[in-house]
Amino acid sequence: MACLCVELIQVTVFNCRGLFLEKVFWGANSTFRIMTLEKFFNPKSVAVIGATENPQNITSAIIKNLIETGFKGRLVPVNPKYKEVFGFMCYSSLLDIKEQIDLTVIAIPSNLVPEALSQQATCGIKNSIIVSGGFGELGDKGMALEEKIKSICRKEGIRVIGPNCIGVLDNYSNFSTSFLPWTRVKRPIKGYLSILSQSGSYAISVIDMLAQEGIGISKIVNYGNRADVGESELIEYLTDDKSTHVIGIYMESVDDGRRFINAASHCSRSKPMIVLKVGKGDSGIDAARSHTGAIAGKYEIYKAAFKKSGIVEVSGFEEFTDACKVLLMQKPVRGNKILIITNGGGVGVAVSDMCGVNGLDVARTPSSVKEALSKRFSKYYILNNPIDLTGSAVDEDYDVAMKSVLVDNDFFDAAIVIPLMPPQTMTERVVEIISQRAIESGKPVVICTIGGEYTRKIKVMFEENGIPVFPSPERCVKAMCVLVERGKFIQNRGILS
Amino acid sequence: MACLCVELIQVTVFNCRGLFLEKVFWGANSTFRIMTLEKFFNPKSVAVIGATENPQNITSAIIKNLIETGFKGRLVPVNPKYKEVFGFMCYSSLLDIKEQIDLTVIAIPSNLVPEALSQQATCGIKNSIIVSGGFGELGDKGMALEEKIKSICRKEGIRVIGPNCIGVLDNYSNFSTSFLPWTRVKRPIKGYLSILSQSGSYAISVIDMLAQEGIGISKIVNYGNRADVGESELIEYLTDDKSTHVIGIYMESVDDGRRFINAASHCSRSKPMIVLKVGKGDSGIDAARSHTGAIAGKYEIYKAAFKKSGIVEVSGFEEFTDACKVLLMQKPVRGNKILIITNGGGVGVAVSDMCGVNGLDVARTPSSVKEALSKRFSKYYILNNPIDLTGSAVDEDYDVAMKSVLVDNDFFDAAIVIPLMPPQTMTERVVEIISQRAIESGKPVVICTIGGEYTRKIKVMFEENGIPVFPSPERCVKAMCVLVERGKFIQNRGILS
Repeated sequence: MACLCVELIQVTVFNCRGLFLEKVFWGANSTFRIMTLEKFFNPKSVAVIGATENPQNITSAIIKNLIETGFKGRLVPVNPKYKEVFGFMCYSSLLDIKEQIDLTVIAIPSNLVPEALSQQATCGIKNSIIVSGGFGELGDKGMALEEKIKSICRKEGIRVIGPNCIGVLDNYSNFSTSFLPWTRVKRPIKGYLSILSQSGSYAISVIDMLAQEGIGISKIVNYGNRADVGESELIEYLTDDKSTHVIGIYMESVDDGRRFINAASHCSRSKPMIVLKVGKGDSGIDAARSHTGAIAGKYEIYKAAFKKSGIVEVSGFEEFTDACKVLLMQKPVRGNKILIITNGGGVGVAVSDMCGVNGLDVARTPSSVKEALSKRFSKYYILNNPIDLTGSAVDEDYDVAMKSVLVDNDFFDAAIVIPLMPPQTMTERVVEIISQRAIESGKPVVICTIGGEYTRKIKVMFEENGIPVFPSPERCVKAMCVLVERGKFIQNRGILS
Repeated sequence: MACLCVELIQVTVFNCRGLFLEKVFWGANSTFRIMTLEKFFNPKSVAVIGATENPQNITSAIIKNLIETGFKGRLVPVNPKYKEVFGFMCYSSLLDIKEQIDLTVIAIPSNLVPEALSQQATCGIKNSIIVSGGFGELGDKGMALEEKIKSICRKEGIRVIGPNCIGVLDNYSNFSTSFLPWTRVKRPIKGYLSILSQSGSYAISVIDMLAQEGIGISKIVNYGNRADVGESELIEYLTDDKSTHVIGIYMESVDDGRRFINAASHCSRSKPMIVLKVGKGDSGIDAARSHTGAIAGKYEIYKAAFKKSGIVEVSGFEEFTDACKVLLMQKPVRGNKILIITNGGGVGVAVSDMCGVNGLDVARTPSSVKEALSKRFSKYYILNNPIDLTGSAVDEDYDVAMKSVLVDNDFFDAAIVIPLMPPQTMTERVVEIISQRAIESGKPVVICTIGGEYTRKIKVMFEENGIPVFPSPERCVKAMCVLVERGKFIQNRGILS
């Protein structure tokens, strides 16, 4: 059995561009694990090449961020100019460091990178995050330099994230190579979402938005020009990562189509995956080539690959963060019959309309249920689907409706609940009522509520109860579509949710 | 000449469902104006039927709102139960009031409404906002009651907004029939956008969002079941309203197709109009029928009518508010060549891609301009369109790029500028720089910047300078599309912008 596993590992090794994969065997009973990418996320010791306290230099920001956010590993600045950097002993060269270094962080001019890598090879350091730009994204000239560093790494068995990237953020090890100040970008809390992004600016924007939304992050990787480690291998790694429950990917191009489909098909059986693919039209393809040297290729092929792999594809920034959120907070829908309950008729109409346009079934409320409800409700209330409790609704009306239609009856598979808070007949108690009934029903429930400050307060209260809130009919329905799509995938593949 | 005008007025009178239109002649030189709807927005005296201080009753909230927001007209409570309501003398019946009343506000049980209208007819009061529900939205039974009130109004020449509505908000006269507390819904500032909405909840949600965005409002009308006054006549009225520059419409159905197209075609020549049509699919059509009794009809016919009338159609809540905002803040684009400038490559790629998907032309930067720029910029900067100033950009790079490409050169018709603020090399000064160059160029500029708290601060600063900001590539590009569509319309119709 152990032998079989070793063989399997070796198959993986050969698939991986011929690069050496470090293998670690744990324990006497042959339990073992490939540690290939682990040191990018949880290094015990990190050498920062070209380290300085000069605020104009990004190594300074990287080190300050690591200190401030409580990275527990050893920090080793390397720069012949200094004896000490931010209180840490600074070495002239990697060659002077006696102890084992897990990872280098390289943020120096691009023409100096090959030399740094060669030195690192001499020291037996097998992992590097190359933050520096000035490679393939510059066209032919930069590409030659990129090929040079690829060749060194291939020869020396060095694994690389980058170049031209921000690198890594791990909220569990507190390791991060971000050089952006947390005063300008809110650092997200610890959680279960991991993000893979070819683009650094996109990754940072997503981080800031997710932090704002209170969505917890496990890991974020921005791999830029992707000279070595790309999304396929990262997906393989995250498939086994306990703190990753959902994976979101921003993609300009894919590293290795076949490997990607294999990795994603395997991963998506246990973990929902979302992708935002750019480079759909000529202008996007052009821009992607200039940005990370990516050859975006035919969009239709990507589309088919995502579908085949069980990845939910989204078409924009808000849809991306919404899909991540809803998949983290709610389980997939087993079916397609969606109940809508509201105290705002017009918003109910808009949600119903969007459901129809997106293929969700706004089935009529069964007559037996309508009959029962009509005894409890004013004649003004509309009991078709949407159930419109009108502007006169009080909190308890939501209780009655949700209990009868969602808890005591299995006709509907999920619900979109739209408690609009402007009428004073509605109080904050409705949050507890709806949340409680949603949990009791065992069915996915998402909330749509629109408005300013007061509505945002209500949103936070719902989300503290684990019920996701979306700020418009369109975003709410799209989020429900994601749960329905995930549900279909699970049922088609015979996966237990 | 005067006679001709009188004839024209009379044509309008006969088109209007046979209802009597009040005509007011001003001055000795035959200057005159139809005052039909004026009293709904700026009544000198308002009788509130069923007025009470009981907080459970919505008349109480209506009166309190009027007092708090400084309505200058006379407020006349009517209720046989009280001598005084909120300090105002209360009358037993409309018949007891000696002075002229411009408008009644009716928020009493639906079965009592016909009697109130008959009494109002006796007093010669020609305008009424019927807030009460319990009419056509309830189906056949309610429809009979609605027909009854329509018949009374037709016979007596009473003009009605409603029933089943919130009514009116006018930010210039401070008149409003809203019964929703401004503690829960932010009241928008005075401005130039007017909103027409069949749905009350939609209107309130839009108000709250617009107030949050700092967008100024002129008038908002929610007409609910639309027994009489509908969007066509309101558009005619707003065409001449000086404080309305842009009109946004939320529509379930249209009152009178031909009149709507005529009114909108005329209005949209001088004022941009935006519509969000719901009831596109069966579920939405069904829901609309239950909501306001609206027969939503074939969506394709609406689509063609909007196009014919020069109305910009949007497909969701955010798109609606974004379109209103961009049309208020920027002028139409004369062409289709869009420049993109960013310091975030990935977001630039996403914007470029969305432009392509939406038919905008992300034309290459002319070589002469590229050559000039290459002398000023680092070799890492990408000078194709998008111009990517990379994560190393400083404020002045935006100045150089915008001056060369947008101010000194007429190749591009408009620009999407994407200043991402996380890098510390970017400071708040960039807001002044970009705003200044945008104004100097004389071309429409919209900003895309993504993120949390710090980014929102930058957003507010840009918008204080009149440059609209959108929080994602998709929303920003859609907003630019609105300006391009408006530009095409203006050029096709030979209208001077």
